[in-house]
Amino acid sequence: MTSPSVPPDHPRAESLRVREKLIERYHEGVVASAGLIAHGRGEAFDYLMGEKTTGPALRAIEAAAAAIITAKKPVISVNGNVVALAAEDVVKLSQVTGARIEVNLYYRSLERERAIKKILERAGASEVLGVGKDASARIPELGSERRRVDPHGILVADVVLVPLEDGDRTEALVKMGKRVIAVDLNPLSRTARKASITIVDNIIRATPKLTKTAGILRKQGRKNPADILRNFDNKKNLAESFALIHRRLLKLAKEKKHSTLEDEKLDL
Amino acid sequence: MTSPSVPPDHPRAESLRVREKLIERYHEGVVASAGLIAHGRGEAFDYLMGEKTTGPALRAIEAAAAAIITAKKPVISVNGNVVALAAEDVVKLSQVTGARIEVNLYYRSLERERAIKKILERAGASEVLGVGKDASARIPELGSERRRVDPHGILVADVVLVPLEDGDRTEALVKMGKRVIAVDLNPLSRTARKASITIVDNIIRATPKLTKTAGILRKQGRKNPADILRNFDNKKNLAESFALIHRRLLKLAKEKKHSTLEDEKLDL
Repeated sequence: MTSPSVPPDHPRAESLRVREKLIERYHEGVVASAGLIAHGRGEAFDYLMGEKTTGPALRAIEAAAAAIITAKKPVISVNGNVVALAAEDVVKLSQVTGARIEVNLYYRSLERERAIKKILERAGASEVLGVGKDASARIPELGSERRRVDPHGILVADVVLVPLEDGDRTEALVKMGKRVIAVDLNPLSRTARKASITIVDNIIRATPKLTKTAGILRKQGRKNPADILRNFDNKKNLAESFALIHRRLLKLAKEKKHSTLEDEKLDL
Repeated sequence: MTSPSVPPDHPRAESLRVREKLIERYHEGVVASAGLIAHGRGEAFDYLMGEKTTGPALRAIEAAAAAIITAKKPVISVNGNVVALAAEDVVKLSQVTGARIEVNLYYRSLERERAIKKILERAGASEVLGVGKDASARIPELGSERRRVDPHGILVADVVLVPLEDGDRTEALVKMGKRVIAVDLNPLSRTARKASITIVDNIIRATPKLTKTAGILRKQGRKNPADILRNFDNKKNLAESFALIHRRLLKLAKEKKHSTLEDEKLDL
């Protein structure tokens, strides 16, 4: 059932390598089965976005960087897909910004929590919150195990970065008064609309850019983080991403270009 | 790692049930891990299509039904995702049209072939081609195990229904002079463009409609299958599906309606 290695000249080599990594992490118990399906949805929207960081995404990344570096207690919430796709990048972001890392899963199991923690530690994390008994606090308005958070992490955070999150949790965190930064390739999703700042981009591309931008803003360059945040309008930014998809569809239709989404060697 | 049962009042209950079925079949060794990711891509496009059988899809279904009932040797090619999503429907289509069923996998393994055959037999199939040594023939222009087909099935078929197929194989079959019918939710995909007739619809909705339409056409109603086929233009039909996605995006943007793609309880 394992995939053969990807031929380097394959037109979708990068996308296939990412997919193989995700499947590998699935077999290690890090990624959940529904996480594989969610990745496929992301792939489709990424293709429609042109598989690159767009102008609106760069502006959202700048706002997110401003929010994180001016936060008192920023936290990066990670799940199986996040560590499978961007463990090293998340650790670097944490190191540059001082944001703490917390494991936060939809379906919690101690095995998965520990497997995710291990990957983060291997990637250089010196601290991982939210594992096992550490997730002893509860956030309101969410059912069962999803409510569990770390009393030293998400519970008391003022800014939470929730890449690849679900709409309910995003909304619950916003209602708690937190500034929530989402990374979501679907600009129409409820997560995208409920978040304070939505980065419509692939987490693999967005996270290193976020780290770099945070570093630049920290050095107090020309731009003031407070100004950036004041001038950022998430609804407007989402509408711009949406307009880009729309224009890209028109362009694809004109070119009669084939989507290469189905070119990949699908294991069907 | 198994998903909890879906609450019946969940706004995405149907989509979640389908997903759970797919994951169940994955754990049985029927669906491949890359098949889960492929399903996610399909979900995204299905959402963009409005999750219903569109006018263009109905016309493609009619053309497909005409092609199958006038074929000398029609074959339905099935893989893990197809049996997970529509085993009973595929068997009914086979029974109504006389099309033979052949297992055809990207990554062949005898275990998967047998697991798929078993599900088809449980769904009422009296014959399943292409399992084990039966897949002794080769089709040109494809690498390795993907080339293997049944000499009594796809090799000699004049019409092949290939739901959820990859672009390479679709193209190879077309080059062999076969009329290829694809079911693909992405109207821009290479599969969609290479096939003779492309049904841009969810296999779950399309297959029973295809069976029903084949039954009606067989009874020699008002419409002549040859006329239907002559009047069907796949490129034009794909362009119509594409235009529908485009209009739906505009409508969603106007309504500022949230995509519910991310509303599902994602196991991340």
